[in-house]
Amino acid sequence: MNSYYIRIAHLTAALLLSSTFPLQADEGMWLFNDLPKKLLLEKYDFTPTDSWTEHLRLASVRFNTGGSASFVSSNGLVLTNHHVGASTLHKLSDAEHNYATDGFLAHSTSEELKAPDLELNQLVSIEDVTAQVNAVVIDDMDPDDAATARRAVMADLEKKSLDQTGLRSDVITLYGGAKYHLYRFKKYTDVRLVWAPEASSAFFGGDADNFEYPRYCLDVTLFRVYENGKPAKIDHFLRWSENGAGADELVFVSGNPGRTERIFTTAALRYLRDKKLPRRLNYLRRKEIMLQQYSLAGPEQQRRASRTRFGIENNRKRSLGMLQGLQTPKFIATKQQQEDALLAALRGRADLKDAESAWQQIAQVQQERAAFIGVWTVMDGQYYHFANHLLLMASEDQKPSGERLREYRDSARESLLQKLFSPAPIYEDLEIAKLADSLSLFAEDRGGDDPLVKKVLAGQSPQQRAMALIQGSQLASVEVRQKIAGDDAASLANSPDTMIQLAQLLEPEYRRIRRIRDKHKEIERQAYAQINAAQVALHGTDSYPDATFSLRLAFGTVRGYQEAGQTVAPWTTMGGAFAHQAAHQAHGDWRLPESWTSHESQIDKRTPLNFVCTADIIGGNSGSPVVNRAGEFVGIIFDGNIQSLTSAYFYTDEVCRAVSVHSSAIREALRKIYKAGHLADQLGK
Amino acid sequence: MNSYYIRIAHLTAALLLSSTFPLQADEGMWLFNDLPKKLLLEKYDFTPTDSWTEHLRLASVRFNTGGSASFVSSNGLVLTNHHVGASTLHKLSDAEHNYATDGFLAHSTSEELKAPDLELNQLVSIEDVTAQVNAVVIDDMDPDDAATARRAVMADLEKKSLDQTGLRSDVITLYGGAKYHLYRFKKYTDVRLVWAPEASSAFFGGDADNFEYPRYCLDVTLFRVYENGKPAKIDHFLRWSENGAGADELVFVSGNPGRTERIFTTAALRYLRDKKLPRRLNYLRRKEIMLQQYSLAGPEQQRRASRTRFGIENNRKRSLGMLQGLQTPKFIATKQQQEDALLAALRGRADLKDAESAWQQIAQVQQERAAFIGVWTVMDGQYYHFANHLLLMASEDQKPSGERLREYRDSARESLLQKLFSPAPIYEDLEIAKLADSLSLFAEDRGGDDPLVKKVLAGQSPQQRAMALIQGSQLASVEVRQKIAGDDAASLANSPDTMIQLAQLLEPEYRRIRRIRDKHKEIERQAYAQINAAQVALHGTDSYPDATFSLRLAFGTVRGYQEAGQTVAPWTTMGGAFAHQAAHQAHGDWRLPESWTSHESQIDKRTPLNFVCTADIIGGNSGSPVVNRAGEFVGIIFDGNIQSLTSAYFYTDEVCRAVSVHSSAIREALRKIYKAGHLADQLGK
Repeated sequence: MNSYYIRIAHLTAALLLSSTFPLQADEGMWLFNDLPKKLLLEKYDFTPTDSWTEHLRLASVRFNTGGSASFVSSNGLVLTNHHVGASTLHKLSDAEHNYATDGFLAHSTSEELKAPDLELNQLVSIEDVTAQVNAVVIDDMDPDDAATARRAVMADLEKKSLDQTGLRSDVITLYGGAKYHLYRFKKYTDVRLVWAPEASSAFFGGDADNFEYPRYCLDVTLFRVYENGKPAKIDHFLRWSENGAGADELVFVSGNPGRTERIFTTAALRYLRDKKLPRRLNYLRRKEIMLQQYSLAGPEQQRRASRTRFGIENNRKRSLGMLQGLQTPKFIATKQQQEDALLAALRGRADLKDAESAWQQIAQVQQERAAFIGVWTVMDGQYYHFANHLLLMASEDQKPSGERLREYRDSARESLLQKLFSPAPIYEDLEIAKLADSLSLFAEDRGGDDPLVKKVLAGQSPQQRAMALIQGSQLASVEVRQKIAGDDAASLANSPDTMIQLAQLLEPEYRRIRRIRDKHKEIERQAYAQINAAQVALHGTDSYPDATFSLRLAFGTVRGYQEAGQTVAPWTTMGGAFAHQAAHQAHGDWRLPESWTSHESQIDKRTPLNFVCTADIIGGNSGSPVVNRAGEFVGIIFDGNIQSLTSAYFYTDEVCRAVSVHSSAIREALRKIYKAGHLADQLGK
Repeated sequence: MNSYYIRIAHLTAALLLSSTFPLQADEGMWLFNDLPKKLLLEKYDFTPTDSWTEHLRLASVRFNTGGSASFVSSNGLVLTNHHVGASTLHKLSDAEHNYATDGFLAHSTSEELKAPDLELNQLVSIEDVTAQVNAVVIDDMDPDDAATARRAVMADLEKKSLDQTGLRSDVITLYGGAKYHLYRFKKYTDVRLVWAPEASSAFFGGDADNFEYPRYCLDVTLFRVYENGKPAKIDHFLRWSENGAGADELVFVSGNPGRTERIFTTAALRYLRDKKLPRRLNYLRRKEIMLQQYSLAGPEQQRRASRTRFGIENNRKRSLGMLQGLQTPKFIATKQQQEDALLAALRGRADLKDAESAWQQIAQVQQERAAFIGVWTVMDGQYYHFANHLLLMASEDQKPSGERLREYRDSARESLLQKLFSPAPIYEDLEIAKLADSLSLFAEDRGGDDPLVKKVLAGQSPQQRAMALIQGSQLASVEVRQKIAGDDAASLANSPDTMIQLAQLLEPEYRRIRRIRDKHKEIERQAYAQINAAQVALHGTDSYPDATFSLRLAFGTVRGYQEAGQTVAPWTTMGGAFAHQAAHQAHGDWRLPESWTSHESQIDKRTPLNFVCTADIIGGNSGSPVVNRAGEFVGIIFDGNIQSLTSAYFYTDEVCRAVSVHSSAIREALRKIYKAGHLADQLGK
C-alpha cells in the first residue's frame, strides 16, 4: 500500500515536467472521424486507411452497462472483460450456480445463457450536428432556457434519425460543449453467455493487485450476439494475431473511455480535491462496510452482494488514487501555471480576452456546488430506481419528447424499457439493507429535524422504514412494472405501492435539485466551449475531446517502464502467475483456481499473460480490443496501472500504462485450462 | 443485519413508554460511597454492609487501557476480558508468536510474560472535595478563567494527596460538574500474562455476533500482578461461586462504565445525531478500510493491524447502533417531552427558573461545535502521539503543576512516563499508512490550499510526506524518547527529529483548538451542574451520576427477554457453541478453534457459557466481575446486547441486557479444553 501511494507521487513528479501543449507523446483519445493522421505518419509511419478505420469501428462493441468489447468471430462471439460481463454473470447466478465466482462454459450454442438485460451497441455512422444544435441557443439566453432549448433540439435530431434509419441515435456533446455529433448504433439485445473463467483467475490478486503491475489476470469473458434466435452473422470481426504484439510494436485501442477532465480549470480541480472526491470516498467506504456487514451472514449473502462490492471497491481504489494525485501540491500548482499562461495569452488578444469570464463562471459554479453538498441522497437499490423511473416517465410523457428530461425522450424509450423490465433477480434482504443505509444517510445529511426527512421516515427508524417500504412494494415483479408502465400519471398518483409513494414524496425535491444541477452543467458547457475555442485559436485544432463514453481510438507502443530504479518488463507470462502465487504463499486472493493448478503441467508457461502499452485510456475502456497495424487482435484492455489513475486530468507516457490480457493467453487458457478448444478454434474466424 | 436494526427500533419503542423519573427498575451506575440502600432493601431485601461493599471495591480492578477486572486469587490472579487484555496480547506478540490470535498458557509463574506498559488500579478510598473545588470558581467568572482555576485546584488536591499517601490520586467530576470526588488508587505496574484463549473462542462469531445475543464467547484472559518480582499477596479477592447465579437471582456488577450521556439536553442529542456520530462513523469506516487495505499484503500485516482493527470495528458497530437509536424520530421527541415538562416545572419555581439559561448555553455550545467540525485532525499513530507528548510536556513543565494542561500535572507524571517509555513494538509500515491517511484527511478537511496544510505537506503528497516524516524520526526507540524527555523546551525547539518538528508545526493550532474545546466543556460543566441541581430540587437526590470511567456498582437479575415474539433464554451452554457453529456451517468467524473441537467429547456440554442480566452497564464495564449476594464471583461482563447500545442516553430493563461469561464455563474450559487445571484450582483461593 505504501509503495502504491509513493508511485502515485512519483508519477506526479514525472508529469509535472510536461505541459498540456503540445500533446504528450502517445496522448489522445481520438474521434474516429477525426484521427491524427499527420501525427501517426510522422511518428509511426502509419496511415489508417478509410477501410482500416471503418473495419475497426464496426468490429468494436459498446456494453451499455459501462464497458467495451469487440466482435472476434464471424458467428457472433463478443470478447469483453470478466469484470465488464460480471453484472450479467451475477444476474444469471443463483444460490446453486455462482457463475460470477466459479466461471461458466457452454459446450455448444444450445447451452449458452441469455443475458437478462444486456444491450450491445455497434457504431454505424457519425454525423456532425454542431450547427443545428447551436442554432437554437441565442446569445444571452438564460442557462435554464439554453439547456431546455439544447435538449429539445438534440431529442428532435435523435428522433428524426431513429425514424429514418431505425438505428439508435444519440447526440454526443464533445469538447465540453463546443461540438455535437450524432452517433448511430446498431443494437444487439439478444446476448448470451458463452464462457467465463473463475473470478480467482480473472481477478487474481484481488483488491491488492487491482491497478497494480506486473499483473497476472485472465480478465476475459465471451458472449455471443444472436439475431432471430440464431448466432448473428458478423462481417466486421477481428482476426486473431498469430503471436500477439512484439516489443515496441505500435498498437491501437478502440473503445469507449468513460470520462476525463483534462479541460478542467484549477477551480474545478480544487472542488474535486477538497469537496467532491472526499465526499465520494466517504460514501464508497460507507457502502463497502455496509455490504461487508451484510455479507457476514453467510455464503449466499456474500454472493448476492459480491457484484456491487467489487464495483465499490474498484471505485474506492480509483477515487483514492485520483485524490492522492490532486493532493500532491505541485499537481494543481502546475495546472495553475498553465492556466495563468493561457489567460495571459488571451489578454493579449483583443478577439479572445472576453473568454476570461469563462473561468470565473466555472469557479462560481464550484462554489455553488460546495454549498449544495449533502442536500440530496439517491435511495440505493433497484426498488427506488424502478419506482422513480416509472413515476417520472408517466409525468414526462405528458410533454412532447423534446421537452422531457433527456432519458425519457422517445428515441431512448426502447433501451429504457429493456432495463425497466429486466428479469434479473432482486434480493429483498439486500434491498432493505441498501435502502436503510440510504435513509440513514439522508437523515444524517439533512438532519433528523428536516421536514422531508420526517415525512420520509414517517415516525420509524431508517431500518424499520426501509423494511416497511420494501415489503409494501411489488416492484420486484416484472409483470407489475410492466403494468405500472402502462398507467398514466393520474392513476400512479393513487398507487398503493409503497416505493412509488416514496418516489412521489421525493419527486419535488428530486426535480428541484436536478434543475439546479442541470443549470450548473449548462453554465460549464458554455464556459468550456469558450475555453476550448480560445485554446484552438491559440494552439490550433490538432486535439481530441475529453472522454464521453463514446468510441475513440488511442495508440501507443508495447513498452515497460522504470519504477523505483527497477525496469518493469512489458510482459508477464502464465508461468509468472504460478510464481506470483508462490511469492504470496497463496494468501488471500493470491490463490489460483483449481483449473489452473490441476493443469499446470500442460500449460506453456512462456505464454504471455498480461502486457502494458502507452495508449491513453481510462475507465470505460475496459474490454477494448488492442490491435496491430494489420488490424489483428493482439489483446484486450482490462486495467490501467496505479500511476495512470490521475490521467483523468493529465496524461504522460513516462509511467502511465494501459494493461491488457494477451491474445495468446486467451487461446492457451481456453485450450489447456478450460478444455474449450471449440471456442479457441472460433476466435478470429 | 436487518434483524439487528429492527431490534434497535423495537427497543426504542419499548423505552419510550418510560420517562426519566422515577428511575427504571434496575437502572443505575451507583457510586460506592452512595449506594441505593433503601431501594435494594425494598426491592431485593438486601443490604450491602460496609464490609461487603469494601471487599467488593478492593477486589475490583481498573485497566487503564479502558476496561475492568477483578482479583480472583490470593496470589494475584486478575481476570479480565480477552478484548480488554488484547492490546497487551498484541504488544507481546511478534511475527512468530501471535498470542492475540492463537492464545497463550503459562504452565508455571516462570513462564508468565510481563506486559510492557499495563497499569492496574485498585480504588482504595473516596473523598468528597466538591466544596474545595467550587470555592475557586467565583460567580460570573469567564469560562476560560473558571476552567483554569478549577484545573489548578484539582491538580493541587491531587498533588497533596499523592505526597501524603503515595497513592495515585485523581479528582473525578460527577453529575456533569455538580460534585467532585478525590479517588485514591493503589497502582500495579508489574502485570504478567498467565492465560488467554484463542481469538476464535474469545470472539466466536466475530463482528457478526458482536453485540448480539444468544452468544457463545469465552471472552476472558488471566493476568497476575507482581510486587517486588513476586506474585502479589492479595487480601481482597473474589471467592468462586460453586454453581454460578441461578435464574432471577440478584447479581451485582462492579466496574468502570466509561461514559453515559443521560443528562444530555435535546440540543446535545441532536448534535450527536446530526453531526458528531455521522462524522465519527465516516472516520471509523475510513480507518477500517485503510487497515483492511494494509492487511491485504499478507499474514504479518494482518497481525500487526488486527488489534486496531478490532477496536475500530467494535466502535463502528456501537456508534451505528447509537445513531440508529437517535435517528428513530420518537427517541428525541420523547426526550423533548421530558425536557419540556422539566422546564415547565422550573418556570413554576421562583428559586429555579434561572436554571433555564443552562439549556440555552448548552444549545449554543452545540452550534459552535458544528461550525468547528473538520478543523482538527489527530495525526494517527504512535510517533505523533509520542512527539506531541514530549513537546507539550517540555513546555508545560515550565509552569507550576496546577497551571499545566491536566495530563502534565505532577501527580500524573509516573503514569504518563510509563506509557511514554513503553517498549511495546512499533511497526514502521503501519505507522506510515496511518500517518499518510491522517495527513490526507487533514488536507481534505481544511482544503489543499490551507496554509497549515501546505506547511505540513511541505510540497509532498500525504504519502510521500508520511514516509519522510516517519523515516526521519527516531521516536520508535525507547532510549531516544527517554533522552528527549530529559530535554528542555529550548533544546527541543531545535530537534532534528522530523516528528518532533511536525508536532511543533501543529502545536499552536493544537493549543488553539484545545482552548476552544475546553471552554465548551467548561460551559457545559457549569450548565449541567445547574440542570442537575434543578433536578435534585424537583425530584430529590436518589440518583447516580453519568458514567465517568470510575468505579460503580450496578445490580440486576439474571433474566431472559422477549424478542420478536420469542423468549430469549438467560443462558447459553458450551454445547450451544457447537450447535451455533453447525447452524452457520462454520462460515467466517463461526469456526471454533481446534482446542474446542478436539476436546468436544470431554466437555460437559450443559455447562452454562454466557448469560444475561438486567444490570445497567456500558463500555468500560468490560471485564467487570459479576457477584452474588454473598459477594462470590458468578461471571464476568463482556458485552451488552444490541438493544442496550442506546443506553448511553436511556436505560430500560425491558430488553437491554448485560452479557457475561459464566463462572462455570471458565473453570470447565481451563480444565477440559486448555489443560490448565493448575489455574482452575487457584480461582477463588
